[in-house]
Amino acid sequence: MSSEFGKNIKLSVFGESHGKAIGCVIDGLPAGVKLDMEKIYSDMARRAPGQGKYSTPRLEKDIPIILSGVLDNVTTGAPLAMIIENTNTKSGDYANVMTLPRPSHSDYPAYVKYDGNNDIRGGGHFSGRLTAPLVFAGAVAKQILKEKGITVGAHIAKIKDVCDDKFDKNNITPELLENLSSRSFSTISAVAQEKMAAAIECARMEQDSVGGIIECAAVGLPVGVGANMFSTVESHLSSILFGIPAVKGVQFGAGFDFAQMTGSEANDQYCIKDGKIALMSNNNGGVLGGMTSGAPVVLDVVIKPTPSISKPQQSVNLQTMQEETLVIKGRHDPCIVPRAVPVVEAAVAFGLLDLMM
Amino acid sequence: MSSEFGKNIKLSVFGESHGKAIGCVIDGLPAGVKLDMEKIYSDMARRAPGQGKYSTPRLEKDIPIILSGVLDNVTTGAPLAMIIENTNTKSGDYANVMTLPRPSHSDYPAYVKYDGNNDIRGGGHFSGRLTAPLVFAGAVAKQILKEKGITVGAHIAKIKDVCDDKFDKNNITPELLENLSSRSFSTISAVAQEKMAAAIECARMEQDSVGGIIECAAVGLPVGVGANMFSTVESHLSSILFGIPAVKGVQFGAGFDFAQMTGSEANDQYCIKDGKIALMSNNNGGVLGGMTSGAPVVLDVVIKPTPSISKPQQSVNLQTMQEETLVIKGRHDPCIVPRAVPVVEAAVAFGLLDLMM
Amino acid sequence: MSSEFGKNIKLSVFGESHGKAIGCVIDGLPAGVKLDMEKIYSDMARRAPGQGKYSTPRLEKDIPIILSGVLDNVTTGAPLAMIIENTNTKSGDYANVMTLPRPSHSDYPAYVKYDGNNDIRGGGHFSGRLTAPLVFAGAVAKQILKEKGITVGAHIAKIKDVCDDKFDKNNITPELLENLSSRSFSTISAVAQEKMAAAIECARMEQDSVGGIIECAAVGLPVGVGANMFSTVESHLSSILFGIPAVKGVQFGAGFDFAQMTGSEANDQYCIKDGKIALMSNNNGGVLGGMTSGAPVVLDVVIKPTPSISKPQQSVNLQTMQEETLVIKGRHDPCIVPRAVPVVEAAVAFGLLDLMM
Amino acid sequence: MSSEFGKNIKLSVFGESHGKAIGCVIDGLPAGVKLDMEKIYSDMARRAPGQGKYSTPRLEKDIPIILSGVLDNVTTGAPLAMIIENTNTKSGDYANVMTLPRPSHSDYPAYVKYDGNNDIRGGGHFSGRLTAPLVFAGAVAKQILKEKGITVGAHIAKIKDVCDDKFDKNNITPELLENLSSRSFSTISAVAQEKMAAAIECARMEQDSVGGIIECAAVGLPVGVGANMFSTVESHLSSILFGIPAVKGVQFGAGFDFAQMTGSEANDQYCIKDGKIALMSNNNGGVLGGMTSGAPVVLDVVIKPTPSISKPQQSVNLQTMQEETLVIKGRHDPCIVPRAVPVVEAAVAFGLLDLMM
Repeated sequence: MSSEFGKNIKLSVFGESHGKAIGCVIDGLPAGVKLDMEKIYSDMARRAPGQGKYSTPRLEKDIPIILSGVLDNVTTGAPLAMIIENTNTKSGDYANVMTLPRPSHSDYPAYVKYDGNNDIRGGGHFSGRLTAPLVFAGAVAKQILKEKGITVGAHIAKIKDVCDDKFDKNNITPELLENLSSRSFSTISAVAQEKMAAAIECARMEQDSVGGIIECAAVGLPVGVGANMFSTVESHLSSILFGIPAVKGVQFGAGFDFAQMTGSEANDQYCIKDGKIALMSNNNGGVLGGMTSGAPVVLDVVIKPTPSISKPQQSVNLQTMQEETLVIKGRHDPCIVPRAVPVVEAAVAFGLLDLMM
Repeated sequence: MSSEFGKNIKLSVFGESHGKAIGCVIDGLPAGVKLDMEKIYSDMARRAPGQGKYSTPRLEKDIPIILSGVLDNVTTGAPLAMIIENTNTKSGDYANVMTLPRPSHSDYPAYVKYDGNNDIRGGGHFSGRLTAPLVFAGAVAKQILKEKGITVGAHIAKIKDVCDDKFDKNNITPELLENLSSRSFSTISAVAQEKMAAAIECARMEQDSVGGIIECAAVGLPVGVGANMFSTVESHLSSILFGIPAVKGVQFGAGFDFAQMTGSEANDQYCIKDGKIALMSNNNGGVLGGMTSGAPVVLDVVIKPTPSISKPQQSVNLQTMQEETLVIKGRHDPCIVPRAVPVVEAAVAFGLLDLMM
Repeated sequence: MSSEFGKNIKLSVFGESHGKAIGCVIDGLPAGVKLDMEKIYSDMARRAPGQGKYSTPRLEKDIPIILSGVLDNVTTGAPLAMIIENTNTKSGDYANVMTLPRPSHSDYPAYVKYDGNNDIRGGGHFSGRLTAPLVFAGAVAKQILKEKGITVGAHIAKIKDVCDDKFDKNNITPELLENLSSRSFSTISAVAQEKMAAAIECARMEQDSVGGIIECAAVGLPVGVGANMFSTVESHLSSILFGIPAVKGVQFGAGFDFAQMTGSEANDQYCIKDGKIALMSNNNGGVLGGMTSGAPVVLDVVIKPTPSISKPQQSVNLQTMQEETLVIKGRHDPCIVPRAVPVVEAAVAFGLLDLMM
Repeated sequence: MSSEFGKNIKLSVFGESHGKAIGCVIDGLPAGVKLDMEKIYSDMARRAPGQGKYSTPRLEKDIPIILSGVLDNVTTGAPLAMIIENTNTKSGDYANVMTLPRPSHSDYPAYVKYDGNNDIRGGGHFSGRLTAPLVFAGAVAKQILKEKGITVGAHIAKIKDVCDDKFDKNNITPELLENLSSRSFSTISAVAQEKMAAAIECARMEQDSVGGIIECAAVGLPVGVGANMFSTVESHLSSILFGIPAVKGVQFGAGFDFAQMTGSEANDQYCIKDGKIALMSNNNGGVLGGMTSGAPVVLDVVIKPTPSISKPQQSVNLQTMQEETLVIKGRHDPCIVPRAVPVVEAAVAFGLLDLMM
């Protein structure tokens, strides 16, 4: 119903892939925050297509144009509105008629829901391109969090059957996270990165695609952010993370591995460390009773394989109601996981900031 | 921050384990819905403790008392308020002072967040007992969904290393779901149930506990419920599911298994079945682009092992800031997964109803 | 759609006049606030009926029972739930069938909206009795505001053609407001009080009723509470004030008198007073650009005459669709304005606290 | 805190007077609504300055540019984003330093609230120019309401001591409202219009300004829109109306005149008219118990005199904290009431549509 997120800071995302522009309004930011535009551009570049052989060769420059809420690079307290102009809009000939819905895409339910009125060109409002405003909002959030001593970063934990090293959940440094979040293909292990690249290339050669897992962490959070019942850190972060197209699962700490653990294995006991109370392990991923425990917040997000593949697939013609073979033309990312890393970071950063305001 | 959930129907849950009463207000229900109170009691009994050897022997009768919003068993359109009186409240002697926070519980962050003012008796507002009002709300939601042809049910998919049969995601009948949701230890396979019971008994004998996975499904949903961006079915359901204590992961359809699939394996192609458009598989768990696809909504939820175990654990005395050994007395559920099944059903039912209003 | 108010603190009101109980949940209160229950009872007594010849002789004891959120008179940070049991509920014979809607009451639109399912006994959820939980919430809010140096109070500014002295808008003391808010028939002028009492008595003798105006003020607010656009102090307070039955107008400062003023008469110029910036007048009622200006917040609320009068009135039988004469039996308040004073104070206090959290 | 309005349809307004652009996002509109852009432009032209001798001579073309949510003039169901470019932005020299706050403007509390970071050029986010996006949203809402048989219109009821004829509250035609809402200086009486124009001209000659009252009505609403408690039609409409700069009072039906009426004078009795239930009078302004009664919704809004006057006024230099005389230069509207008429219509239309979705 709504492309809006946030309790204390409202993020309203708008736009369609082939409309005039996409963008967002961020309402509720504090006044007086100095923004480092270069860092914002950097995060947006990590998400943008065309940055290497691992992603789609289309060239779009995602340059954010700030319309309001910022004066001389400092927030004014008024809603921050930002747009990114679409350069691929052709006012000319097109047929906005859905015939063959692409498997695993939003095409079919959107067609039913909007009764054929939604803009289907390039996916319309369902396009992955709509994550660009989220990355912008997350980049702003990261800077405000940074001033509070909080750092967010993520890496590719798995692609197909290649696994990166996982975070040592109870011992993550801001430096590691910053290093990861400054790269376009973030892994902890260089070897894993190479193997992942090979797996992606292999999928491309086979006209297929692959999915993966992104592991994200936030360090420096105070104890007690979030609350229980429906305001848990997990509720809040999962609800924004599941807003990223292709995300199909979110887990915190040991996550689904908890199922085969005993309580004595799973429980994070307490100790005194450097004169302060600390946890001896972090299976709970930094969240207890819905609130931050002081340990790093650590979560995994699974990204399904890119639905757009070149292999022929079966679909149904919505006009004739006959089964037909669909062949998706053009070139598509065989794997969107690398580009999704900054999006996951952005969602976590924005979600956390919203909880802390 | 808030024990409230819902966009169109607001569920506000209140209460503390040892206060006068716990309960909820459901604001926004349609008028004129006839409630089958027996079915509501039945779901609440499935969640209540003391129903067998698998759960805690304390005897609490969770009898809901409706204060408003229902007249002659029919909703009036006014907010439905319900309370469950606490019978274990002792006004007498107690020390509301937190000394040794229990590992993996909310104790420590709650102590910091509420500055020692939260009611710690029995877990206070963080008690698992607060899921009783959620089950009530879910039971009401189930009845309204039933009138729309929608059925929700769940089973225990895994406890420790014992797995139940999984749902055939593209072929789930309302009858199966109703059968599962009428039982107190729901599994598809009778053999799995026995083995699970043994695994739980084993944990009890070792003064330990075990976790597990609950698989939940909803059938009969129309195409197009939910939306994209931050209003996806996944966002909405995960945000209420993560409000259930001990839930640490939520996945839809193939979930984390998507990571090692190719697009051609993962994509759900379309066909014509009985003259209608249908999916040939349901790896997406009934949700495409955030909207229902017409296939059953299928999701997994992981429940961590009960944190309260009898084995000695290390904690830190919050008053003296010294490390101490904690021994949790009393008898506790070695596994809360069976009792969590109706809670997961309730969360899914309420979340779906809210999206459909 | 919703009996809920608040952005940062959620107030959810429930109950029907002849149900088991009415009450509210206040979600989002800070932990550690010590509540003076006597002061809460005092405000509730001011609203309660049966306190003098000016109000209805029915005797209901509005004793709030706190179910959760308070331990040893101190807030725990969990939702504060409170109920007031209805003593006038008869489970026996009644006919919940609307025949003759009472003029100026909610009867007719409620009948249409809820399709005859709403509880009509005593007005159901539309009863003025539902303001009791609001007064409770306001009394809690007043105590938290008091700790911040903020005082709220109100008086009857007008009943029929009898006017009380108005506030000197730029010079209101906390003492005056506290004095007014400790009385059951609050006026500044003792003479006005007598004349108002006579006007009410006159209406009673004539089987009629009268309305009036309540003037309310809040002092001690910092500069800059509220914001512009849709978060103005005026928007927020009016939206809760119009939730009080019988309120038909709200104005701030000079209000409707602004229409015949010039800018040079209306503008509140600035001066230095006691070394600080101050306003030389307060025609804006303490709100500029939607934000508090530092001057007292001053507003008027008009209360329409009690719709329940003994004089015969014309109505339409909803079952037969024939015009009929309606004679409302029983005794009714000829003027609810005195009892509405603490309700207005409560709404303003709660609305301001919500804006400040 | 937030420049956002709406429960079911979210209106998020952004922009600053001298920023790149102002605009809005409307999230939640139904798909498939055909928009008549000419009618939208027409409403925006009524609000725009420079349309006659009664308003400011600055020439700004408020041309809305739709960025998303509309394809071939039909809504797509995605958020509708619209911007109006500011043509008066000078990137060059300016001093964003507040020295002398203008009386009755937001200057002083905004300076305190935003700690000097808000954009003060032209009023920034507090500028009356921000009502342009509201008029746009209202024009869209009007078209959707029109399809439901609902018409909204307003006129100037009073300026200084000149009064227009008031609506016959129980007998208002769509034709009258449409006629009023197609004009730039809307009055029912042509004589009143002339006198009002003279009163405004008189204020201009005296370097002063005048305020006024706008009466607005909506006809064709079904019975039962809105609800009681905090979802009344009055609560909802007042909260958006008080978001219009300079609005200081809102009243429904007889409004403040209720104070001196008796119940028997005030009550709207029922009759049968054309075979249907109808009201014999409409003192309640079409709202009973917070819900629409079927009679026209009728309300008054008071607009304070334009604070910007040429006469010297006293202020305080915020840098030196010395009293100084302020002389506001440039030419300003001596009366914004005529331009506020379409804004009031827009607020009422958007508020009603939101309640009905």
